[in-house]
Amino acid sequence: MRTIDWVDGAVEIIDQTVLPKEVRVLRLHTVPELVAAIQSLAVRGAPALGVAGAFGVALAARVHADDPAALAAAVTRVENARPTAVNLARGVRRAAAQLHRGPDAVLAEACAIRDEEVAASQAMAVRGADLVVELCGARPRLLTHCNTGGLAAVVLGTALGVVYELHRRGALAGVVASETRPLLQGARLTAWELSRWGIEHRVAVDSAGPFLMARGEVDGVILGADRICANGDVINKIGTYAHALGARRAGLPFIVVAPESTVDVSTPSGDAVPIEDRGAAEITPWSDAVNPAFDVTPRDLVTAIVTDQRVIRLDRGNRI
Amino acid sequence: MRTIDWVDGAVEIIDQTVLPKEVRVLRLHTVPELVAAIQSLAVRGAPALGVAGAFGVALAARVHADDPAALAAAVTRVENARPTAVNLARGVRRAAAQLHRGPDAVLAEACAIRDEEVAASQAMAVRGADLVVELCGARPRLLTHCNTGGLAAVVLGTALGVVYELHRRGALAGVVASETRPLLQGARLTAWELSRWGIEHRVAVDSAGPFLMARGEVDGVILGADRICANGDVINKIGTYAHALGARRAGLPFIVVAPESTVDVSTPSGDAVPIEDRGAAEITPWSDAVNPAFDVTPRDLVTAIVTDQRVIRLDRGNRI
Repeated sequence: MRTIDWVDGAVEIIDQTVLPKEVRVLRLHTVPELVAAIQSLAVRGAPALGVAGAFGVALAARVHADDPAALAAAVTRVENARPTAVNLARGVRRAAAQLHRGPDAVLAEACAIRDEEVAASQAMAVRGADLVVELCGARPRLLTHCNTGGLAAVVLGTALGVVYELHRRGALAGVVASETRPLLQGARLTAWELSRWGIEHRVAVDSAGPFLMARGEVDGVILGADRICANGDVINKIGTYAHALGARRAGLPFIVVAPESTVDVSTPSGDAVPIEDRGAAEITPWSDAVNPAFDVTPRDLVTAIVTDQRVIRLDRGNRI
Repeated sequence: MRTIDWVDGAVEIIDQTVLPKEVRVLRLHTVPELVAAIQSLAVRGAPALGVAGAFGVALAARVHADDPAALAAAVTRVENARPTAVNLARGVRRAAAQLHRGPDAVLAEACAIRDEEVAASQAMAVRGADLVVELCGARPRLLTHCNTGGLAAVVLGTALGVVYELHRRGALAGVVASETRPLLQGARLTAWELSRWGIEHRVAVDSAGPFLMARGEVDGVILGADRICANGDVINKIGTYAHALGARRAGLPFIVVAPESTVDVSTPSGDAVPIEDRGAAEITPWSDAVNPAFDVTPRDLVTAIVTDQRVIRLDRGNRI
């Protein structure tokens, strides 16, 4: 099962807003439908957003083949659907670079991005599992935040792909999945994927993570990224920074897993990244709210970043 | 309006499980009713629990006046209704020490505890407001966690009483209230109290606090305690520790406000405190969970503790 794919002339996604109650597949035929799916988080996760962006250009190229102005506007709408994860804009631009060759070339490029993310997941899983064993011991208990499984990529995932690979090797003693307020990607999506894989897990409220680390219930923290800056700062789901502070205080490895498509050397540091605020309605019906969907984890709190091509040991002074 | 009081032979509480949708007063006539209200968090907050415990003994003394064994069992049930906040057991023991003098003496002692908590709130508000201005500046933006208002005490509160006093003085620029998962004491109760007081506030998910501090949106953190240990470790709502880590990294004051009735010199350190796990059902219907309701903030992360009688500057080496 793929989180996102091109099937018979439309984009098919697993609707992540209704999991785990229902496994519903949405067929998106138009750019407005795709943009709405991105903005409602029906499709989410940095690698999946990159593929979604590219498929969005493929949809636009078919619909607006005879109207360059409308085509350009549609491409821009997809690119700007969400601001923080670099993959979305990058996927859009890469597919859009094929527009002069026609709709089929755009679709071929989008499918290539999809296939590269599948391959990247597999490479990260192996490399990440090796590193976790090295840093956290032979059979660690890991804490993860948000959802970084197949639902966030195309298959398998980033950090959760590593978790699956450790499980497959018999090298995993259990997982704490933080629930990830406000939209509960951990309690809804990560727990669902771990259940399907038969991996023992417990959900915790987000604010419990640092205490569970202090209490000795976790051997390492592993999670994904929405953008990795040139200086090593990691932009990821709100709560990542708090977990990094907890890991540092407890002396635990803090490992980020993300494909090279999430590394953005054109962003110098976390200060330069627009942090999406998703409004009060996601949090509370009773009052005003501040709702940053992402935060910035400074590079000095990150032990290592695992990509599909390398391990960047920030704790040893490696550079992006 | 008092959170808890003795009215016409029964304990009256504001049912905190249905706020803010409904302001419902419950009349509790028996020990089992009171214990159920404590365990469901219909009444909660360390000072309020101390008063509830004492009123519970008063109920038991009336019902079981002629049956010493039943009376002792009822008192034990109240004392053990929840394990972490020291006030509950302390309120029970103090009222129970009057049992030999009869039910009226027990009730008089319970009412004295209630009155002392009212006076303590007022003393903490003034002393705490003075300290906040000293540490955080003339008109700070404060972050608070869980609920420490009148609902957690009898009136006014602990940390939120300080917030109110600052507002009354025109010395407050706004409040971020963390929602406090899993039971949303921040989003439901603190936001409701702040609204009634006309204090500008925004709710945030718990994991956003440290990032808001890093981003410069907060000048100080102020919250309560369920138990203060002899070495200065603070036991409080889960998430307190994560916020303390965030404050330390951002160089912000981290101020704990609690009455002397929460200071327990017979508990040497946080390691010795039983941390209540309230089970998976509070967090998720979909999987197993780990649900510690409290955490331990080591004394080195606490700037100061304000009680009704003193300011303990842990940052200056003051002792409990």
